[in-house]
Amino acid sequence: MGQHLIFQLLLFLLLLMTVCVSAMYPRTSRLGMVSKSMKSALNAELSSDFVTYYYNQTLDHFNYRPESYTSFQQRYLINSAYWGGANSSSPIFVYTGDEGRITGAAAFAGFMVDLASQFKGLLLYIEHRYYGDSVPFRSIDIAFNNTSTLGYFSSTQALADYAELITNLKKNLSAENCPVIAIGGSYGGMLASWFRLKYPHVVIGALASSAPILYFDDITPHNGYDSIVTKDFRETSETCYTTIKQSWSEIDEVAAQPNGLANLSQIFRTCEPLNSSQQLKLYLESTYDASAQYDNPPAHYVSDICNAIDGAPEGTSILGRVAEGVNASAGPPCHRIYDFQPSNMNGWLWQTCTEIVIPYGRGENDTMFQASPFDLNDYTKTCQGIFGASVTPRPHWITTEFGGQDIKSVLGNFASNIIFSNGLRDPYSIGGVLQDISESVVAVYTLKGAHCLDLRTPMPSDPDWLVAQRDKEIKIVASWLAEYNAKRPTS
Amino acid sequence: MGQHLIFQLLLFLLLLMTVCVSAMYPRTSRLGMVSKSMKSALNAELSSDFVTYYYNQTLDHFNYRPESYTSFQQRYLINSAYWGGANSSSPIFVYTGDEGRITGAAAFAGFMVDLASQFKGLLLYIEHRYYGDSVPFRSIDIAFNNTSTLGYFSSTQALADYAELITNLKKNLSAENCPVIAIGGSYGGMLASWFRLKYPHVVIGALASSAPILYFDDITPHNGYDSIVTKDFRETSETCYTTIKQSWSEIDEVAAQPNGLANLSQIFRTCEPLNSSQQLKLYLESTYDASAQYDNPPAHYVSDICNAIDGAPEGTSILGRVAEGVNASAGPPCHRIYDFQPSNMNGWLWQTCTEIVIPYGRGENDTMFQASPFDLNDYTKTCQGIFGASVTPRPHWITTEFGGQDIKSVLGNFASNIIFSNGLRDPYSIGGVLQDISESVVAVYTLKGAHCLDLRTPMPSDPDWLVAQRDKEIKIVASWLAEYNAKRPTS
Repeated sequence: MGQHLIFQLLLFLLLLMTVCVSAMYPRTSRLGMVSKSMKSALNAELSSDFVTYYYNQTLDHFNYRPESYTSFQQRYLINSAYWGGANSSSPIFVYTGDEGRITGAAAFAGFMVDLASQFKGLLLYIEHRYYGDSVPFRSIDIAFNNTSTLGYFSSTQALADYAELITNLKKNLSAENCPVIAIGGSYGGMLASWFRLKYPHVVIGALASSAPILYFDDITPHNGYDSIVTKDFRETSETCYTTIKQSWSEIDEVAAQPNGLANLSQIFRTCEPLNSSQQLKLYLESTYDASAQYDNPPAHYVSDICNAIDGAPEGTSILGRVAEGVNASAGPPCHRIYDFQPSNMNGWLWQTCTEIVIPYGRGENDTMFQASPFDLNDYTKTCQGIFGASVTPRPHWITTEFGGQDIKSVLGNFASNIIFSNGLRDPYSIGGVLQDISESVVAVYTLKGAHCLDLRTPMPSDPDWLVAQRDKEIKIVASWLAEYNAKRPTS
Repeated sequence: MGQHLIFQLLLFLLLLMTVCVSAMYPRTSRLGMVSKSMKSALNAELSSDFVTYYYNQTLDHFNYRPESYTSFQQRYLINSAYWGGANSSSPIFVYTGDEGRITGAAAFAGFMVDLASQFKGLLLYIEHRYYGDSVPFRSIDIAFNNTSTLGYFSSTQALADYAELITNLKKNLSAENCPVIAIGGSYGGMLASWFRLKYPHVVIGALASSAPILYFDDITPHNGYDSIVTKDFRETSETCYTTIKQSWSEIDEVAAQPNGLANLSQIFRTCEPLNSSQQLKLYLESTYDASAQYDNPPAHYVSDICNAIDGAPEGTSILGRVAEGVNASAGPPCHRIYDFQPSNMNGWLWQTCTEIVIPYGRGENDTMFQASPFDLNDYTKTCQGIFGASVTPRPHWITTEFGGQDIKSVLGNFASNIIFSNGLRDPYSIGGVLQDISESVVAVYTLKGAHCLDLRTPMPSDPDWLVAQRDKEIKIVASWLAEYNAKRPTS
């Protein structure tokens, strides 16, 4: 398949898969697979305890050009229902906003409400610049119109936003003595951990859930993500894995025949005729990827697919089985398969085309997918095609700015108070920190969880291992607060 | 005196006084007071061991606007005469360039050569952007022409420059395993400590000499600098201190008389007639300030002045004594007193007008000087008058970005491997870290030293307390390197 299509696939992954709440299932019309908590997060049902505010934020913290002084309205939410107040130095839990509307993150990360109720905490959720209602230049159309206005969109600026906003808010609340703890998931988890690393004077600790901070440069093997997807399927069923693995060349073979695409359209029950076999393969791959990444209880997406593949009547062809797999859940009568159209209005695409360069790729036979190596030249060309010739990804910037290589020695000697939480079924966990680095920079992971599971609202039906993970996190947070309070001069 | 003149005084201080090597004495034609090491630094006599290179540096690390990708030639010097090489993981000592030509810093900081010879280190000196030969946009005239080109001139950009350059250089030298230690004095010392705080994955430790990182916001009393100058003079001689303290109103009194300025010009032997008494007072104040700040052995500027003041024949008037004081060293036959003309071509002035907002000031009777409180509005207006209406100082940025409040608890819980060295006769020491913060974030100071003394080339004539200070620093550096080597996997 052509380089451009390979790259489309990568962008597709990048676009959809680094958030705690996937917007993918609705997009592919498979709403039946969306769990209740996901739906509520997507619809952002927030109680009246969550109050919206706007902060007059500095556009450019690091330069002093005339435009640097421009300000924009940054949205943040506050829930003070549980707060013990400034006088008691009660903590502040801040969600370091990720690549979506902050209302979605607030609705999703219900664990924060539990933390607030346990520790009498104030809840603060800050929206990331250029997302949701926090877009500079007063309108998305202007902000995304060209790279002169879009160019202030970076993770370092976002972190400085958080530092400035938190510092000001604490002053306004006379809460200078209240300890702040950063919390985030996925990209928001990276930001939470980076925030603790870069602004230890602003936050005393960070809970970074499913944060693949090591998936940059060559720290993590390029095929890490796909190898975990593969493992998830293979551990669920060896035959399911084999069937999927064989299906790609089968698709190629059928597609090469006369009426091949029409046959594929029929086998896979697509709503519209397929334009290319690539289109189908992208759809299947993204389905497997999302199934693995969001395979959190009470859902069991991977099993659903594999049960359908393995359970098809004897004699069913490989493609017939795979089609049963993607039909597994209660979906609509047909699959709506779109070509992914990269848009210069997409914020996450901008971030991946500038600094969040995660080198996804895979070789021959090292996953259940066909080979698709990472190619920086192609990546760059595609980004320039979308955003303009000046936009050149900086693949080494994240590790230069935040580190990553030799993480154990660097964080071990320097950092403190960070929880890196993961579920090992999450393909992104491969780029996470999975080893304790010191007494207070710790890895808390589960074998059975997937992406951002611990951040969700605790439910009575939660399995014991999830309850245990959250309990451990609560105990660690309690120890940070106790240490902070013990060291504070009593005044 | 008018607000504008008060501010001129502040700018004068800012402009001259935050470097290890003062350019002040030559400017005031008092070359006789410049010590040998100072002269050699000003003339930048570097041996052929120092080789000059240029790095193609990114103009804007934090944004992705079309202009952000512009690059400029950043000068750096390398001295590899002592280096043990990459194979032996020999260390790299890097001078984090300050507000001057890097050749001057390299010539001044001779202690680094000692460190290199002791530890088989590579010496690297990186010039700060917008100084010396490291000016973007190919020419000073263009770079300083307006705030659109000047606006990329900030400490955070400079630190990112250092991170990128060091990371690349290590790769090119296959020296990834070589530990790097940052060293700097005065503003360069702030940068060294901030670099260790923000880029612990790039440098394993920092020696920050005379770095007033706490002289921001209201952490240090505004009058801190002047109160140390006052203390230096008062401890040298109570009568000297009293004479100086009384002289200001005497000057005002004489100036108010008919022919007062002409009389003052005569008393103080100025080369040209004085335009105002303020001009004289600025000259005197800056002389006292510099005498205190650079009162490093073998010089003894403060004593020289006080001996002359106290030693004037009995019956000499207060102004006559003060005039003897400033005549003390072998100077030219007359004092050349300039009005300080703030220039928009001055890099340090730009930095003080944007982010390095040190709130110098003093009240009535709290120093040996007349009152001159810090006034942010006036400060801002003056900066806008020099650089244009958009340039608004950000007085809280440094503490937001690098911290400062509650430094003991923040650094104690987070940082490691920083030496804050000071000489307590240095007026800037008041804004330095003077207490051990943890086992490896330590304060190493001398009672008798002044600004940046430890960084100078060691001399046989150095007093024991200075030798002891440097020995302590060497031992600490040795412990960092030993710890680093012990933790490295042997491969």
